[in-house]
Amino acid sequence: MSANLSDTSLRKRNQNESNPRESDSVSKIHNIMQLTDPCHEIKESLLSKSNNEINSRGFLNLALVLLVLSNLRVALNNVITFGILIDPGKWTAILMQNPLYRPTFLLLIALNIFITIALYIEKIVAKKRISEKRANHLIVANIGVILISPIIVNILFECNLLLSSFVCGIYSVVILKLISYHSVNGWCRTAIRYGKPIATFREVKQEYLKIIDTKNLVHYPNNLSVCDIYYFLYAPTLCYQINFPQTPRIRIRFVLTRLIESAVLLQIIVGLIQQWIIPGVMNSLEPFQDMEYSKIISRLLLLAVPNHIIWLIFFYTFFHSFMNLMAEILRFGDRDFYHDWWNSESVDQFWQKWNIPVHKWCVRHVYKPLVYRGYSRFHASCAVFIISAFFHEYIVSIPLKMLEIWSFAGMLGQIPFAIFVSTCLRSNAANVAIWLHLIIGQPLAILMYYHDYYVMHFAK
Amino acid sequence: MSANLSDTSLRKRNQNESNPRESDSVSKIHNIMQLTDPCHEIKESLLSKSNNEINSRGFLNLALVLLVLSNLRVALNNVITFGILIDPGKWTAILMQNPLYRPTFLLLIALNIFITIALYIEKIVAKKRISEKRANHLIVANIGVILISPIIVNILFECNLLLSSFVCGIYSVVILKLISYHSVNGWCRTAIRYGKPIATFREVKQEYLKIIDTKNLVHYPNNLSVCDIYYFLYAPTLCYQINFPQTPRIRIRFVLTRLIESAVLLQIIVGLIQQWIIPGVMNSLEPFQDMEYSKIISRLLLLAVPNHIIWLIFFYTFFHSFMNLMAEILRFGDRDFYHDWWNSESVDQFWQKWNIPVHKWCVRHVYKPLVYRGYSRFHASCAVFIISAFFHEYIVSIPLKMLEIWSFAGMLGQIPFAIFVSTCLRSNAANVAIWLHLIIGQPLAILMYYHDYYVMHFAK
Repeated sequence: MSANLSDTSLRKRNQNESNPRESDSVSKIHNIMQLTDPCHEIKESLLSKSNNEINSRGFLNLALVLLVLSNLRVALNNVITFGILIDPGKWTAILMQNPLYRPTFLLLIALNIFITIALYIEKIVAKKRISEKRANHLIVANIGVILISPIIVNILFECNLLLSSFVCGIYSVVILKLISYHSVNGWCRTAIRYGKPIATFREVKQEYLKIIDTKNLVHYPNNLSVCDIYYFLYAPTLCYQINFPQTPRIRIRFVLTRLIESAVLLQIIVGLIQQWIIPGVMNSLEPFQDMEYSKIISRLLLLAVPNHIIWLIFFYTFFHSFMNLMAEILRFGDRDFYHDWWNSESVDQFWQKWNIPVHKWCVRHVYKPLVYRGYSRFHASCAVFIISAFFHEYIVSIPLKMLEIWSFAGMLGQIPFAIFVSTCLRSNAANVAIWLHLIIGQPLAILMYYHDYYVMHFAK
Repeated sequence: MSANLSDTSLRKRNQNESNPRESDSVSKIHNIMQLTDPCHEIKESLLSKSNNEINSRGFLNLALVLLVLSNLRVALNNVITFGILIDPGKWTAILMQNPLYRPTFLLLIALNIFITIALYIEKIVAKKRISEKRANHLIVANIGVILISPIIVNILFECNLLLSSFVCGIYSVVILKLISYHSVNGWCRTAIRYGKPIATFREVKQEYLKIIDTKNLVHYPNNLSVCDIYYFLYAPTLCYQINFPQTPRIRIRFVLTRLIESAVLLQIIVGLIQQWIIPGVMNSLEPFQDMEYSKIISRLLLLAVPNHIIWLIFFYTFFHSFMNLMAEILRFGDRDFYHDWWNSESVDQFWQKWNIPVHKWCVRHVYKPLVYRGYSRFHASCAVFIISAFFHEYIVSIPLKMLEIWSFAGMLGQIPFAIFVSTCLRSNAANVAIWLHLIIGQPLAILMYYHDYYVMHFAK
């Protein structure tokens, strides 16, 4: 082995001693002298040093690689066990199930009547044909009817579960939008009645006025038109405003990108639900009935990761692709649909950041009015949570025809959790807690509902 | 709802118009005016901005949380399927299997004879009782016998698989150490013979001389003692050096920490192997025999993650805890056992960083001597790889009594992979490739060996 190297090379030198290439031999000796350098020195191990001195960038890559590999295996196993379940035709068939889709379509058409009524009320009160008090009664009645009609239709007729859920979502959005519409118009009338010039009311944000064309500004009550209310209903916001900021033109390329994104991602969501969530939920029923805790946890975790991935894709599809698509088509300028909720370090921050349209609505139409009326900030926050919980329950319970408390409880359960996170945890740990509550909370609620639904319809 | 808020509060104001609390009403109107602030402005969505503007710190936490949850489920499922398999008694029983442990223990005792012979050769050559050439023949013969004796013992006697593997590891280490020992002593003799003063040879690193006590410096041939050679054999290094740098004292607390770490982590490794690897390998045999590719990949991935976790724990246990423990007890100063291999962006970097004792030995006793003799750097690197591959094969094949090429092929396969990574991939992608080859390569080799072992011993 190399043990004999030094001597072999030096033997050569001996043979070449009379050779003129003396310098060559000298350099060989020099080389051997270099090999004899002491090769140890006093040094600490890298991991004995303080954390700040260790560059651990590579471990982030490790985490991502392991994550992909772990879930690749789960995905592969799923395909081995269940085969390919993705089948877009099946969804279309379910949606078009005759006659289950009819009542929900009728509900969508009926919505236009309620919207016309809302506009009519605003018009007659603007012309002072009825009193403010009377108008308020009419508004409350109209919104009450909107709120109740999906419930009545779902009880009386057998509805398609998916379409029904979709319609309840649309109804919730319209209710929030109409509340905003009536409120803002009411504020305008108040401003006029108490002599506050509308000009002042409009000039609050000077920079804002520079963006929109001041000449084309619409003043109350000229905003009360069919075009205006339908523009607001289609715009990706829940807060009404006379004169929305608008972009100068529609960017066709932007529209196409968002359209393709929405279409492709929607297919991915549907495929993942068919392939991964439905078998997972089905499988988890048995341990749930037998209350085998270790199996329940295992199934819950099997459901948690794909559910969360779907939720992340849904977030991007709905809050980025779809809302930007609608905004671009309507030349709606305010694209502030979400903030960096993924960095949030408290429950409050998460709710303030992830759904900006709802957050804006809640602040403008629930929180601030309550605070101005003298309620404490904590009570106002609780009111926001309760209203939010109510609408979550509304969208879920009506199509399932089950008045369960899981969704409502889940939302209200956030209050003690929020207090725990903000008092006990710091920055990074708090962020981890927020992620955990997102990843675990949702599939838990889904399983609870599915369990109750199954017990109600199929068990015994 | 809050739609009527403005009017309710203003109706109050009407009732109180003759009231002295005029200012109160004014503030209420002011509040309403605040609510009517335009709440939309022209703004881009966050994800429409360039990557640099988006703070995505939270997603690292998400990756870690998902990683823990994904593998928690796998671990839980494993316990549900197989029950608790961890049983330290079983290991002790296997190790003490009478009479299978005897030949390996005899091998360990025989090692001392070979070491004594090595020392004796150095002593007589230092006293010039035999020629350099004769000494070299004796050295080669001695090392050849050390290399072959585990092979002969394993063929003649039935040995315990684990102990035999351990002994082959020890034998490899001793061979490398003795090669270094003979080389360095040879260099010293060469230096003396060619008139290069040993003082010069020692003064190469001035700072190094300040660390060790210059008065107590040992000079050749005074280093040729039983104490010195055994100190070197127990020291956590493969490179011999006369006068190792030493720390001033043994830190008892450091020793205890490392001792507890080593013991606890070793138990964890053993437990994980019993619970996770053995059932995984057992289960993967059937698809391997039937050559069902989707199942092979699934089983491979099931094995890859725990295997990698065990490898990471093993790395820390052996290269940090155990080597620091030995070093501290021996007051050995050079604790440079590993660099930040987790950040390596090429295969070369990985092999240069993860095992510093072997890397140092290869550079000092293979690479540099070959380069000094005129071989190209590429050929020298290949020689290092081949020697490394040989010893990997040595440790694995002899206990299994199978001359398979998986380990050897795996090591040699690194050369084309290294060329691919360094030519085709950049920084982060290269780091990911290194991780992937670590995570996938090892369990693949394990499965190959197990498959062949099973086919050889049990099949048909």
